[in-house]
Amino acid sequence: MTTEDLPLGFRFSGVACGIKPSGKPDLSLIVCDDPVSAAGVFTQNQIVAAPVLWCRDRTPSSSIRAVVTNSGNANACTGDQGTRDTEAMCDQTATAMGCKADHVLVMSTGIIGHHLPMDRVTSGIENAAGKLGRELQDFHDSADAILTTDIQRKAVVETRSFADKPVRVAAMAKGAGMIAPNMATMLACVTTDATLSPSECKAMLTRIADRSFNRVSVDGHVSTNDTLLMLASGKSQVEFSKSEAAEFEQWLTQICLKLAIELVADGEGAKYVMHVKVDGAASDEAAEQIARAIGASPLVKTAMTGSDPNWGRIVSAAGYAGATVVPEQTSLRLAGVEIYRGGVPTDFDAKQVSQAMQESQIIPIELTVGQGSGKSEHWASDLGVDYVRFNSEYTT
Amino acid sequence: MTTEDLPLGFRFSGVACGIKPSGKPDLSLIVCDDPVSAAGVFTQNQIVAAPVLWCRDRTPSSSIRAVVTNSGNANACTGDQGTRDTEAMCDQTATAMGCKADHVLVMSTGIIGHHLPMDRVTSGIENAAGKLGRELQDFHDSADAILTTDIQRKAVVETRSFADKPVRVAAMAKGAGMIAPNMATMLACVTTDATLSPSECKAMLTRIADRSFNRVSVDGHVSTNDTLLMLASGKSQVEFSKSEAAEFEQWLTQICLKLAIELVADGEGAKYVMHVKVDGAASDEAAEQIARAIGASPLVKTAMTGSDPNWGRIVSAAGYAGATVVPEQTSLRLAGVEIYRGGVPTDFDAKQVSQAMQESQIIPIELTVGQGSGKSEHWASDLGVDYVRFNSEYTT
Repeated sequence: MTTEDLPLGFRFSGVACGIKPSGKPDLSLIVCDDPVSAAGVFTQNQIVAAPVLWCRDRTPSSSIRAVVTNSGNANACTGDQGTRDTEAMCDQTATAMGCKADHVLVMSTGIIGHHLPMDRVTSGIENAAGKLGRELQDFHDSADAILTTDIQRKAVVETRSFADKPVRVAAMAKGAGMIAPNMATMLACVTTDATLSPSECKAMLTRIADRSFNRVSVDGHVSTNDTLLMLASGKSQVEFSKSEAAEFEQWLTQICLKLAIELVADGEGAKYVMHVKVDGAASDEAAEQIARAIGASPLVKTAMTGSDPNWGRIVSAAGYAGATVVPEQTSLRLAGVEIYRGGVPTDFDAKQVSQAMQESQIIPIELTVGQGSGKSEHWASDLGVDYVRFNSEYTT
Repeated sequence: MTTEDLPLGFRFSGVACGIKPSGKPDLSLIVCDDPVSAAGVFTQNQIVAAPVLWCRDRTPSSSIRAVVTNSGNANACTGDQGTRDTEAMCDQTATAMGCKADHVLVMSTGIIGHHLPMDRVTSGIENAAGKLGRELQDFHDSADAILTTDIQRKAVVETRSFADKPVRVAAMAKGAGMIAPNMATMLACVTTDATLSPSECKAMLTRIADRSFNRVSVDGHVSTNDTLLMLASGKSQVEFSKSEAAEFEQWLTQICLKLAIELVADGEGAKYVMHVKVDGAASDEAAEQIARAIGASPLVKTAMTGSDPNWGRIVSAAGYAGATVVPEQTSLRLAGVEIYRGGVPTDFDAKQVSQAMQESQIIPIELTVGQGSGKSEHWASDLGVDYVRFNSEYTT
């Protein structure tokens, strides 16, 4: 991996500034050499953190110069002081970069309801601004500093040729770790040197989110801070044809889906990822509704944890999802084995299926619910004792 | 408690016939001296067990003579054989009682996807038919034989005067225990000697279910077998006036709510019951939507388990419930203490609130979300390590 793999026009850094008691990195900077196109997709929660409100108001934009992110504190439910702190973070970043605060985007993740320790944030921004670089290590430092209770870094760097010219993408995400004391947040930022207008970014990012980050769940609790940003510098000097734009979008969808699945795999206490595929539904939306109900059921999740081919839990979750299920046309394959066909269980070898479930980190659940053409895919974590421990044994 | 407390016109029994490997009671009979009015409310799941289909087709009715219930096997997802077994259970009960099979109702709860051991069921029905009685112990035997993984019997026997004449109610329920190997089922049966037509039973029971059993949740997984039956013998010879009927309905609602809350308290691994009260919503439906989202959130549930006054999880669950929440007008009382007001946390003593949570078995969560007049109440269990253990450590 060489510097050339990072998108042209961006520099990265990540430092520890003491927001996290652990002393781990908690201040991340992404800086653009020149103004870039930017767009965002944000949480659907009505209780929204100050940094989300800031970004929503300033995207799509053709003038973004930096993204500053802190971890360890979500700056959510913090009232007017929270709004002022978000503004101060952007102000300070803008001062360091010589641009306007309105051209800085901001993300926060961590504890809800506590004011940011602004003295530490301020020194973190200054420190990070002095360490910006284009080595892979700089990008990884930046990706590490947005993590909270994630065990693994979530970063993808790829290059692909369009009409013989390289286009580069560097994307980072953080997941749904939920240790003390509050929920965490899904944050992600995609940088590329592709040439895209702000509205192209926005339209593309919305479709990509729908096919990646919106297809995964850990515990169904929608955060106050979820943010997915995309920055496009145009420095590759590649102007996409219509078919190239479609190819680029498909590529970016794969990258985001990879990050999204990593996020599920690294969910609090998660041991397995369920890959739920539903077909035969009345519409794609109906299929997604069924896939989500299966992925969200605590009974299905605990069956995965215990490698239990408990088709009754899966089929009955489909039955209450709210979309039409035709019992006589419902069939289920679990870990590659057909265990339920036309409304009744097959004569499958439970021990063999259990073994197959235990041996795969990603467990396929393939459900047909009728004769329609609607289908969907969804990824969800299992539910282990550690999830409950992490989230109950802390006391404020 | 004397025999007079049981509704006139009913006899009860419960026996063990070997469906449950544990040898615990698993065959329950309720028999009516003469044909009674009966109605039922059933699961919303599209995957529906054979006994549910049987009862749905035969209620409301003015001719019901018996209810036969087995525990230990749900007779769900059992295809044509399951339909034949349900019919056989009703046939055998009818033969023992000297009535028609169509005048027998049936409930099953337990393992999904296994055929009933009909030889055992048959001998259980014969045995139970020989033991019918009107002592409180007979009623309790009947209530015990419908349990699966419930720890406590759920039975209420009450008498109330209407125009100086006694009207009696005896109600039983079983809850959402979910040990090996599949989901359990909510079953309940209300008997009374009030005089009510089948359609009065149906209308009343639907409203009562909406205000009792439909207000509670353990893990949000809707069973294939949920059944609530009501039988009214008229043997009290009390004909209700309009206001008395309303009083009777309110009384029955309280009885069902008591059973429903016992069901939550006895949920798998449950230590606490959250009593979620939402007001200030745009409508009662909106308030219920918010209350349900709070009760269903694994993060809120685990906070209860850990006696953690984690308002961020509660407020953010309200924010994604799908009903309007006005952040600046949102306030929260937890265990009687206001901990969040107008969108920001108060300066509450976390240790004191945690202590109060730890000491109450039912924890009040009172949330105001705006200026509307919509309100609702909901009861839900917490989520402890034992729930996950029970439901994951079994392997088929």
